[in-house]
Amino acid sequence: MAFRYPDGRKFEPKRNEMTKKSVNKDARFSNRGMTLEEDINETNEYYLAHQVAVIHKKPTPLQIVNVHYPSRSAAVVTEAYFQKPSTTDYNGVYKGRHIDFEAKETKNKLSFPFKNFHDHQVEHMKRVLDQGGIAFAILRFSYTDEVFLLEATHLIRFYEERDHTRKSMKKKDIEHFGYLIPLGFHPRIDYLKIVDKLITGS
Amino acid sequence: MAFRYPDGRKFEPKRNEMTKKSVNKDARFSNRGMTLEEDINETNEYYLAHQVAVIHKKPTPLQIVNVHYPSRSAAVVTEAYFQKPSTTDYNGVYKGRHIDFEAKETKNKLSFPFKNFHDHQVEHMKRVLDQGGIAFAILRFSYTDEVFLLEATHLIRFYEERDHTRKSMKKKDIEHFGYLIPLGFHPRIDYLKIVDKLITGS
Repeated sequence: MAFRYPDGRKFEPKRNEMTKKSVNKDARFSNRGMTLEEDINETNEYYLAHQVAVIHKKPTPLQIVNVHYPSRSAAVVTEAYFQKPSTTDYNGVYKGRHIDFEAKETKNKLSFPFKNFHDHQVEHMKRVLDQGGIAFAILRFSYTDEVFLLEATHLIRFYEERDHTRKSMKKKDIEHFGYLIPLGFHPRIDYLKIVDKLITGS
Repeated sequence: MAFRYPDGRKFEPKRNEMTKKSVNKDARFSNRGMTLEEDINETNEYYLAHQVAVIHKKPTPLQIVNVHYPSRSAAVVTEAYFQKPSTTDYNGVYKGRHIDFEAKETKNKLSFPFKNFHDHQVEHMKRVLDQGGIAFAILRFSYTDEVFLLEATHLIRFYEERDHTRKSMKKKDIEHFGYLIPLGFHPRIDYLKIVDKLITGS
C-alpha cells in the first residue's frame, strides 16, 4: 500500500503502524521479508533491554482533524492526514552522545535514489552535526540484503551535488564512503559497532 | 476536550495537533491562554532559527487501523487510536549533549500531581541518565504562571516515593530542588539557560 501527500509525494505506511491484522505472521519467524524498519526496531529494543543505548523511532506525524468519542473508555480518530516529517525518524542517546539517523531501503541494484530523502531531513542532519550530534543514514540494498551506514557529511554532500540528470547515489560511492554493517541474529543490524568507530575516530 | 485511553487514563489532545479551525486566533497575540506546549514549541523554534539547539516535540503516537485513499493526491486516516507514549515528548541535541524532557502543567496551587507522568516516561528518563543524557521536566503552575525545570534525578526520586496518600509533588519541594525559569517574550521559556548551569555543574 502506498499513499500520496497532498503535494503528490508518496507515503509508504510502515507495516507496524498498520493494524496487526495486516501483518503476515509467518514473516516474523525469518529475517527474510522483514522491513528495514522492523529490523532497526528490533535492534533498538535489544540495545534498550541490554542497556547499550536509548534509541527510539519517532511516531509518524499526523494532523488530527476529527476525534470521535463513543464512550468513556476510548477515543477514535476519524479523520487525520499524513504530514511530511521535518526530522529524521530515529534518535536517542548512546554513551553521552546524541544519535540521529534515517533508515531507508531500495530495490535498486547499483544506486540509491535521493527521492527517499526530504530537504527538511537533510537540513535537520546538518543542524544536528552543527550541535555536535552524530548523524547518519542506514541504507539497505534489499536485493543483496546489504546494509550500509553512511555518515551525514557524505549524504549531505551527495544530496547537494544531485541535479536533473543525477537523481541517486551510486552504490560504489556508498561502499567507498560508508561502512558495511555486519548482519546478525540478535541484534540484527548492530549499527552501534560502526558508531563506535566514528566516536573513536572523531 | 479530553479523551481516555482504552485503559481509562485521560488523554488531552494538544491544541496544535487539532485542526486550525479549533484554534482561537485571538489567543495567538498574547501570552495569556497559551498552553505550555505552545510556549515550548515557540521556544524550540527560536532555538532552531538562532542555531542554539535542535530540539523537537515528538508526534503523538497513533495506532493507524484504516486509511482511505479517495484520490491520487491524498490519503485520509479514517480510524486510529491514541497510544500511550513510552518516552518523553521532547528531545534533541544542544552543545553536543542529548536533551530529553517532558513538559506538564497543573492548575493546582501548592502541588503537582504525579498522574501527569506515566511509569514508562519515568523509566525512560532513568535510561537517558544512565547513557549520559540530560533529562528533566518542565513544570508550569498555571495559576501563578511560574515555570520550573526539575532535573530527572529529583523527579524520579519523588515519583518512587509516592504512595496511596501522596499523589503529588509539593510545590515547595519543586521550588527547593528545581530552578525557576525566567519567562520572556522571545524565547518565552528559555530553559537552556538553566541547562547551561546543569552542564557547568556536572
